[in-house]
Amino acid sequence: MFTGLSAFPLTPLNEGRFDEAAHARLITRLVDAGVDSIGALGSTGSYAYLDRDERRQVARASVRSAGGVPVVVGIGALRTSHVQALAEDAQQAGASAVLLAPMSYQPLTDEDVFELYADVTVGVSVPLVVYDNPVTTHFTFSTELYARIAVLPNVAAIKIPPVPLGANAARERVEAIRAVVPDHVSIGVSGDSAAATGLNAGCQAWFSVVGGTLPEAVLPIVRAARQGDPEGALAHSERLRPLWELFAAHGSLRVTAAIAEHLGLVPPSCLPRPLLGLTASQREQVVRVVEELHLS
Amino acid sequence: MFTGLSAFPLTPLNEGRFDEAAHARLITRLVDAGVDSIGALGSTGSYAYLDRDERRQVARASVRSAGGVPVVVGIGALRTSHVQALAEDAQQAGASAVLLAPMSYQPLTDEDVFELYADVTVGVSVPLVVYDNPVTTHFTFSTELYARIAVLPNVAAIKIPPVPLGANAARERVEAIRAVVPDHVSIGVSGDSAAATGLNAGCQAWFSVVGGTLPEAVLPIVRAARQGDPEGALAHSERLRPLWELFAAHGSLRVTAAIAEHLGLVPPSCLPRPLLGLTASQREQVVRVVEELHLS
Repeated sequence: MFTGLSAFPLTPLNEGRFDEAAHARLITRLVDAGVDSIGALGSTGSYAYLDRDERRQVARASVRSAGGVPVVVGIGALRTSHVQALAEDAQQAGASAVLLAPMSYQPLTDEDVFELYADVTVGVSVPLVVYDNPVTTHFTFSTELYARIAVLPNVAAIKIPPVPLGANAARERVEAIRAVVPDHVSIGVSGDSAAATGLNAGCQAWFSVVGGTLPEAVLPIVRAARQGDPEGALAHSERLRPLWELFAAHGSLRVTAAIAEHLGLVPPSCLPRPLLGLTASQREQVVRVVEELHLS
Repeated sequence: MFTGLSAFPLTPLNEGRFDEAAHARLITRLVDAGVDSIGALGSTGSYAYLDRDERRQVARASVRSAGGVPVVVGIGALRTSHVQALAEDAQQAGASAVLLAPMSYQPLTDEDVFELYADVTVGVSVPLVVYDNPVTTHFTFSTELYARIAVLPNVAAIKIPPVPLGANAARERVEAIRAVVPDHVSIGVSGDSAAATGLNAGCQAWFSVVGGTLPEAVLPIVRAARQGDPEGALAHSERLRPLWELFAAHGSLRVTAAIAEHLGLVPPSCLPRPLLGLTASQREQVVRVVEELHLS
């Protein structure tokens, strides 16, 4: 399950409520494009902003629309007991796997995080993806902590932050993690602009923000990397450079939401407040890039 | 309401459930000591980890035990609509004021945060305290943003992060804020080790972590500052330096919880998981300081 493109759709809201029809359209695009798995309720899917009922509803709707494509469901929350309840809900909804980031309010210690994963993995019966996203969690995993957590029961993959952009540095980073985690644990890269480099460096999967909205635009990167064509993967990624520049300037979530809004895939202002959409002038930049790259 | 000592008690848990009896004991200590206000469900009160029902219960219990001392209730949440619901609950529980930090998962822009306060202040009928705590929210307010938010309806105070420890630098910082916010908006300092300096520099209130558990230990600082005795305030604070050093090493929340546990005020492991208590050797350090300073 944890190879190739894992595509993370938005959870579109319409005036603050889950828009199930728009969500089904997004999921159907992913199925039709042939993604390898669907990441529902990732950071791109605004999991941290939704209440338990909404998350249950989104998880069920995702599995229903996915037509057999494996669905990974985000179960992160600030409190361990809430994570455990969300894990149960996700499994009952038919999730093929769960994804857990160590959300924080008070700064977390390594022991807090290890015990969180120990408490949660012991109670799940589907594979669990360790989700390392320091930009949102403000927690930094050491390679040693990856190693301790990777041997817990049901841990199947680690979703790592962007790799360094140099090919050698990226390979060193991935090999350093590979050396300390069991072979059955997949390593997947995040950070769309670094994905080609990460796949070329040995990452088995790409957990993608933009791939959840524009799968056709990014699948050539994955296919080239898989077919042993690293130059091709980089060339396909390089073609999308104007998009990566927008991500760097305004954040991948807000830019992807603006693209989906512009293409009519989701309603206007689809993100949960207080997250405002892009400004009018930022949206003009997005529209220019969408047209220049023929994104659809 | 926003002058003097605003004391923030723990929200003690017993095996993961709100311990109302222990909580009532903590509140009663604050009332008996003569604090100026009580900050329920602050960061010290683990607001971010509790669900809506628990928060309603804690808010009601706080007002009930406070015997007329004003209770400020934390209403922070990641999503604006959740904050609005919590504000309503807090007011129905009898809160004298509400306290709002811009919690974040996705990084927030200044506009996101301004609109959050605009959305919330328009709907409340009690004073609101703007809570600036970059360590937990990962959002940094500019002085300009303070100025924009301070003129919104119902904004009554700003809880600022620790001031610089030098007297001149602290005074410059407080005066810079004072210059841009209306006179009716109180400025209160956080960060217990910097409180004497902050009060001497012109802060009207101290929002205190340890004051929520050991009010008698810290009231002399407030009283000296109020009586125009800055040297006395600093001397009382200096006496507690071993405590400030523990806070710097292990975090004020975990140290305060360990003190409360050691003194038998709250059950063991009173914090919400994944927040683990201090280790055995860290607790030994805490006990030594409690004994050395005769804290009780």
